[in-house]
Amino acid sequence: MKLSEGVEAAIHCALVLVGMNEGATMPGAALAEQFGVSSSYLLKHLNALVAAGIFESVPGPTGGYRLARAAEDISLLDIVLAVEGPQPAFRCGEIRQRGPAKLPASAYAKPCGINAAMLRAERAYRAALAAERLSDIVAEFRTEGDPRSVAASCVFVARHQRPQKSISTKR
Amino acid sequence: MKLSEGVEAAIHCALVLVGMNEGATMPGAALAEQFGVSSSYLLKHLNALVAAGIFESVPGPTGGYRLARAAEDISLLDIVLAVEGPQPAFRCGEIRQRGPAKLPASAYAKPCGINAAMLRAERAYRAALAAERLSDIVAEFRTEGDPRSVAASCVFVARHQRPQKSISTKR
Repeated sequence: MKLSEGVEAAIHCALVLVGMNEGATMPGAALAEQFGVSSSYLLKHLNALVAAGIFESVPGPTGGYRLARAAEDISLLDIVLAVEGPQPAFRCGEIRQRGPAKLPASAYAKPCGINAAMLRAERAYRAALAAERLSDIVAEFRTEGDPRSVAASCVFVARHQRPQKSISTKR
Repeated sequence: MKLSEGVEAAIHCALVLVGMNEGATMPGAALAEQFGVSSSYLLKHLNALVAAGIFESVPGPTGGYRLARAAEDISLLDIVLAVEGPQPAFRCGEIRQRGPAKLPASAYAKPCGINAAMLRAERAYRAALAAERLSDIVAEFRTEGDPRSVAASCVFVARHQRPQKSISTKR
């Protein structure tokens, strides 16, 4: 079982956006170069984050992306679900209904206990992801991260962020 | 993100084996027919469960599979890891090291905070899976499951299980 590589890129992008000035945007191309992925690949995930209400997109050649809400209100679960979609990792194929016995459908009215157990575990996973907020990860990076890495991130944001006249709709 | 279909089949097979007489084995072909999967497909997962010490295999035309340890000592985590492998869902690609800044490797000595956060969540998922024991799922099925489904499962086991002269090495 493997989360797509888009999850890693999306989280890194989100953390970069936390560091921008109020209302500024970051061009997708700069993010793509920073994380060594193709622009078209990254665009798909950036747009998924916009669709999920995590990012905002300001169109045009001087536009780019910014957070749609505060970093305290964005969790790793939000980002994972935006990139991976809402389905759980375990998808019950009702294989209990296969086989030669051919019971009527009413024999399967109650959900399969295996599915119930796997979904309990999934809820624990999602709760743990929901507890990981962007604001906390950024704060830890700024205090615990290698100073050269922190400085390089700061320089990147300063170099590429674009001030915007439009007011962010950030809640 | 999706667990492979082999996980569903493997868990169902394990639950069937809980219901057998002491020391008896279940032929793989019967399990494959019961869950509507090809024998060759299922064999791969049954062998993974043997390799992981969850199942035992008695070779030969009158052999088959049985649990290698008590149902109380087998969790859904054991089965998921046997089928899916040990790697976590999030695999850090160190994309923080990409980009034009080209910091020395020493700047990345500490693990990436994103990887750390994702692994914390993974540990919660695995802990929840580890709390789901086969014995509990079977007990719930026997008391809460549709009586027709419970009866059909019982009939299946009675019909296909094979007594064995060899002593099970079950711990």
